[in-house]
Amino acid sequence: MSLITVGTMAFDAIETPFGKVDRIVGGSATYVAYAASNFIDSVQQISIIGNDFPKEEIEELKKRGVSLEGVEMVPDKKSFFWSGKYHMDMNSRDTLVTDLNVLADFNPIVPDNYQNAEFLMLGNLMPKLQLSVINQMKNRPKLIVMDTMNFWMDIALDDLKEVLTKVDVLLVNDGEARQLSGEFSLVKAARKIMEMGPKFLIIKKGEHGALLFHENHVFFAPALPLEEVFDPTGAGDTFAGGFVGHLAKTKDISFSNMKTAIIVGSALASFCVEKFGPERLKEIKKEDIDRRISEFVQLVNFEIDLV
Amino acid sequence: MSLITVGTMAFDAIETPFGKVDRIVGGSATYVAYAASNFIDSVQQISIIGNDFPKEEIEELKKRGVSLEGVEMVPDKKSFFWSGKYHMDMNSRDTLVTDLNVLADFNPIVPDNYQNAEFLMLGNLMPKLQLSVINQMKNRPKLIVMDTMNFWMDIALDDLKEVLTKVDVLLVNDGEARQLSGEFSLVKAARKIMEMGPKFLIIKKGEHGALLFHENHVFFAPALPLEEVFDPTGAGDTFAGGFVGHLAKTKDISFSNMKTAIIVGSALASFCVEKFGPERLKEIKKEDIDRRISEFVQLVNFEIDLV
Repeated sequence: MSLITVGTMAFDAIETPFGKVDRIVGGSATYVAYAASNFIDSVQQISIIGNDFPKEEIEELKKRGVSLEGVEMVPDKKSFFWSGKYHMDMNSRDTLVTDLNVLADFNPIVPDNYQNAEFLMLGNLMPKLQLSVINQMKNRPKLIVMDTMNFWMDIALDDLKEVLTKVDVLLVNDGEARQLSGEFSLVKAARKIMEMGPKFLIIKKGEHGALLFHENHVFFAPALPLEEVFDPTGAGDTFAGGFVGHLAKTKDISFSNMKTAIIVGSALASFCVEKFGPERLKEIKKEDIDRRISEFVQLVNFEIDLV
Repeated sequence: MSLITVGTMAFDAIETPFGKVDRIVGGSATYVAYAASNFIDSVQQISIIGNDFPKEEIEELKKRGVSLEGVEMVPDKKSFFWSGKYHMDMNSRDTLVTDLNVLADFNPIVPDNYQNAEFLMLGNLMPKLQLSVINQMKNRPKLIVMDTMNFWMDIALDDLKEVLTKVDVLLVNDGEARQLSGEFSLVKAARKIMEMGPKFLIIKKGEHGALLFHENHVFFAPALPLEEVFDPTGAGDTFAGGFVGHLAKTKDISFSNMKTAIIVGSALASFCVEKFGPERLKEIKKEDIDRRISEFVQLVNFEIDLV
């Protein structure tokens, strides 16, 4: 069951209250690939990199079964670079530098070998590029999941709304859900957004967990209370990768299985924040993931007797 | 199984983005009594009121089995008055007016008839007053639950710490847990606070739910995503009343039953915010509460198969 993931592969410079790195591998597609490859061995990446992207990282991804045929390497340019600084509460950050570099010319091409993918994960990118990928698919994937951000709501809302009519699941944070819908109540916001296209909506609330909406149903998954959140960079993409990876592995896109997939995504994200960049994601094994998922079960498990 | 609840009975003036009331009954002990009296018919109130406190409210509480023997009525003074305005996000508010009135002379006395209570709920009050109530009890209650706020951490920290050594459960919000412990991570904060005395700690996060800590265990209860939060005033006290009311009814103070009690408290709080003041709490019946609790079960219920 193959999964196409479209997004950035980049370098990040990150400062958190707990430390600092000047240059670490990042990018939405990188995190999605590291997370999803725990569940399936057929992640098919579409991205763009410069001549500076580390060979070891490429090898590591290949070892995990990630196909890089759709990743364009531009020989005379540098990879996308982002630099940011987190505030104490880790829920807010300032962007210090955004060097588009190769990303300025990104024109994602779906290789023929990717054409039969049944799952498509559109990482946060210019909506026109997300649309282009959807339009290149000869057979519509079974499930299209889309991430986006407030920036595109500010400058490309019409394009964004067009993509929304073509996807099944939208991932946004609470602020973005409010901006997109014009509603403060997340319940009302969810209803309006689902009217724009997606049948499922996931609202991410960082350390406060995530909500899944579908028709009149709502499911809540907490984030694991952690002793230390070291670096939140990539946590949202890792969540998405775990979510769609579990769905692709189980080939079940019911609401009930999406609830499970959200717990799996939350478990993966809880590892991501433990070290800088995707470092922790490279270390974990199936046993670690299973143990973490059991902690989620403990966290929310209660018995109730209505008498 | 009787429950003593100590706290304010007051008038509030409230402004939210959805409306405004100039004078509505409020106070921590009022909310606790309305919530807990759904579960037990032996709530024993300790508070102080002025000559202006409405007779109908007194009658309503008596009808619900609430004993008011411990409520002092000061004939020539007014009841405590608080006025506040909520911001759009409803998680923050500005206090506009605080008229202590009778509260300035509050000296809580435990009536003889209350002496055998097995549950004691100390609402948010000056720590010295909370301590005085504990010291008046001839037999230590089976469970002492305490609420407090940042104000007392600022001006009466030593007294507050003394009370902490004598209680079983502390209720605070996330900001207060951080202030009291000096730790940003709530997991670390919880550990430090439990070393100060309470064996159980509940950290309330408003619309983001609540965490229960005990030894090395943690349990998370979400808040129900609501279409409209009309007025959050009293939600924390209502939560406390539902929590301790369920424990008093079931006479079971295990960690496992406290998890259930938190869900019950969350359900009660979700009603409280639907109308101004305690209005909604006066309307609900057992069937409404049971239905709401079922919604909580649906909200967090998922199946997972570690394969």
